[in-house]
Amino acid sequence: MQQTLQYIESNKERYLKEVAEFLRIPSVSSQPNRKGEVLRCSQWVANQFKAIGMENVSIAPTAGHPVVYADWLHAPGKPTILLYGHYDVQPEDPVNEWKSPPFEASVREGKLFARGSADDKGQVFIHLKAIEAVLKNEGKLPLNLKVIIEGEEEVGSPNLDAFVSANKKKLAADVVLISDTSMFAHGVPTICYGLRGLAYCEIEVTGPNTDLHSGVFGGSVHNPIQALSEIIASLHDKNGRVTIPGFYDDVLKLSKAERNSFAKLPFKDSQYAKFLGVKELYGEKGFTTLERRWARPTLECNGIWGGYTGEGAKTVLPGKAYAKISMRLVPNQSAEKIATLFGKHIKKIAPKTVQVKVTYLHGGEAAITPIDSPGVRAAVIALEKGFGKKPLYQREGGSIPIVTNFKKILGLDTVLLGFGLPDENAHAPNEFISLDNFFGGIKTSAHYYYEYSTIAK
Amino acid sequence: MQQTLQYIESNKERYLKEVAEFLRIPSVSSQPNRKGEVLRCSQWVANQFKAIGMENVSIAPTAGHPVVYADWLHAPGKPTILLYGHYDVQPEDPVNEWKSPPFEASVREGKLFARGSADDKGQVFIHLKAIEAVLKNEGKLPLNLKVIIEGEEEVGSPNLDAFVSANKKKLAADVVLISDTSMFAHGVPTICYGLRGLAYCEIEVTGPNTDLHSGVFGGSVHNPIQALSEIIASLHDKNGRVTIPGFYDDVLKLSKAERNSFAKLPFKDSQYAKFLGVKELYGEKGFTTLERRWARPTLECNGIWGGYTGEGAKTVLPGKAYAKISMRLVPNQSAEKIATLFGKHIKKIAPKTVQVKVTYLHGGEAAITPIDSPGVRAAVIALEKGFGKKPLYQREGGSIPIVTNFKKILGLDTVLLGFGLPDENAHAPNEFISLDNFFGGIKTSAHYYYEYSTIAK
Repeated sequence: MQQTLQYIESNKERYLKEVAEFLRIPSVSSQPNRKGEVLRCSQWVANQFKAIGMENVSIAPTAGHPVVYADWLHAPGKPTILLYGHYDVQPEDPVNEWKSPPFEASVREGKLFARGSADDKGQVFIHLKAIEAVLKNEGKLPLNLKVIIEGEEEVGSPNLDAFVSANKKKLAADVVLISDTSMFAHGVPTICYGLRGLAYCEIEVTGPNTDLHSGVFGGSVHNPIQALSEIIASLHDKNGRVTIPGFYDDVLKLSKAERNSFAKLPFKDSQYAKFLGVKELYGEKGFTTLERRWARPTLECNGIWGGYTGEGAKTVLPGKAYAKISMRLVPNQSAEKIATLFGKHIKKIAPKTVQVKVTYLHGGEAAITPIDSPGVRAAVIALEKGFGKKPLYQREGGSIPIVTNFKKILGLDTVLLGFGLPDENAHAPNEFISLDNFFGGIKTSAHYYYEYSTIAK
Repeated sequence: MQQTLQYIESNKERYLKEVAEFLRIPSVSSQPNRKGEVLRCSQWVANQFKAIGMENVSIAPTAGHPVVYADWLHAPGKPTILLYGHYDVQPEDPVNEWKSPPFEASVREGKLFARGSADDKGQVFIHLKAIEAVLKNEGKLPLNLKVIIEGEEEVGSPNLDAFVSANKKKLAADVVLISDTSMFAHGVPTICYGLRGLAYCEIEVTGPNTDLHSGVFGGSVHNPIQALSEIIASLHDKNGRVTIPGFYDDVLKLSKAERNSFAKLPFKDSQYAKFLGVKELYGEKGFTTLERRWARPTLECNGIWGGYTGEGAKTVLPGKAYAKISMRLVPNQSAEKIATLFGKHIKKIAPKTVQVKVTYLHGGEAAITPIDSPGVRAAVIALEKGFGKKPLYQREGGSIPIVTNFKKILGLDTVLLGFGLPDENAHAPNEFISLDNFFGGIKTSAHYYYEYSTIAK
């Protein structure tokens, strides 16, 4: 392994040259006129896999852009990792806000700028070079590796589920490894081990059977906007807790270790509030802001509408009012069950003066790869070795549909070994990856294959 | 007077023929291609006034359609009535829903059908024939009469204020008389003596400085839709009373006589609820439904919006949410003062987690012509004589801008001596005026001139 690390150290210049080739291909998946570039990019990725010694390399067509597959399966009795990434990128607009051309890699102040440098070409390249370094210096990988690099992540992966479902056996593995997320901050290596789930509903409140004149009728019927507001206002108590009976019943509690680790992350409520432009934060009492965002279920209004919403005044007492309300779920909660509790509760608290209809639009479970699981334990050691610093644990408040679907289709947990940064400008001008994370990521990834092989055996 | 009433009785057939001429002119003020018809209609009205003996008849041009003026001022020492009406009508669409052509007067089942039969040509015609009958049979009117019949009521009277302001002296009077509203029900003569005012505001609630991902940030900031809902929910207490401090302070209380009269009107909560399609009515405890609609100030949400309001789901935690909220005011309340109380209260109750901005969009005072004022006392006697039945008092929950403006510009109260019916289909196909009210209206109007002359002297 010493030789492998030495090799990585001495090949940094070459890595920067090679990644620039990858970044130069404008593989914008959302733009039909760049379909050819996306295809060319898939070929570049496939050729790289071939060049570094991966096998069974294929460019699998889908209804959209192709999926690149490769594997190395010469470690019988050893665990198997399924590595996922994507070679497509976001559009570069607005181009004039870029300080260097979006598809020309440019190194400034310890950062590598270009569209896709962090999301996700740079992180795919990290694994390409980690695999190359191990195979070149050790002659073999310490485990079995399967790789899928898709070309439609930035348009919602419309064809990935079908591909994964059609190749269940081929993709069988012990864990999914994804490097497409961010660390908590520069110089703070972190491992993300949990994501929240979602239950998204819509409420329709009907008052009178038609819009009424608010002068003629005002004061005699329950205004559906008012009734809806009363319902929404009642969904949180004065401690910021959701009032739906049973809402917290299945919540997997945070362990002391998790809370302690979160508390060590460099995060200040005052700075966060300033960043968001609010005077005071809000949320469930008894939990820190990070705990609330990552590990507590929450209820948010995503939209509300009813009556007259144009310029000026219209004296209408509307017949209907609507809201979109979603709940973020944490591990062990069932989206279906929470949606049912929500629907029942709304019906129960709705005043007799109006009618309510609740529709469950969609949902998905939270994901967790426990901190004592082999996948996460290996990541902790690999990060410490790669960055020379003990990593901290973190979770994410959002969902990553791919993670949910890998669990659903393949039954696999995912380890999110992300090397981006929160301010990396993914999806914006001047996207970058820090060189520390770029090179540290290559080392960490190489370590990861070994650590996982040892721990998960 | 006996002779006048006899005359009215014996001219019914002629009245129906003549009103048909008036109704035949498609004076739709909103349709530019009918500008000529609107003008022709103003000429018809002017010619009628001349024919019945009114003087100083003029067709005053405005920036839109003209105002017809006429007067009869030969009763020195006697009071002066300013009679207002309009000769323009609503469009006839959808034409195929009319059972008889919209501009052909058709009598069926005791009703006269045609566009404008009730709103307001039929009621203007009632006064034309009442004046004619009195002048023809008595040789003079018992008071001074000034008349303005405008051609833009159905498009919001955009040029009337300017006309009235420019002719303040010419229009000076003791009371304004308008026959353009409805009685409570067929066979239930009523006099409307009060209208509600309005204070219309908009609230903008700002949470974070931009729309956020509801997964990443949900649980850490106060969602502005939630904050707005909490504000709105708090504006009524459990008794349906508005919670703004001082909101009810200036309310002119209903007298026992008024409440008793309202209670005699044929109105059932259960029928009203069925008509509106609600299981239960809603409103301030301690008052009947009619009292709440007519004589109690109320607060209604006219519109609400924020976040994602399209099809399906978007996981946004919006930066802003908005509501349009108006308060209906009753006599003695000041729109300006109530809007100020509202703004102060919203600012006071807004949580520190968000910022609120309250904008006062517009407002107007309530109107009342007290039941013991000469104008209303005369109406009560005239209605009893005209319909052979003691009339009841009623108010309206909406505002009539013309009434507010006559008060503002000329300092005059208005008597609303309406002969329409609530189901008259004004603005809809098959508009009608009941023949009972049409002929009863002519008699009542003739009586009114005499009664007012006696009482207000």
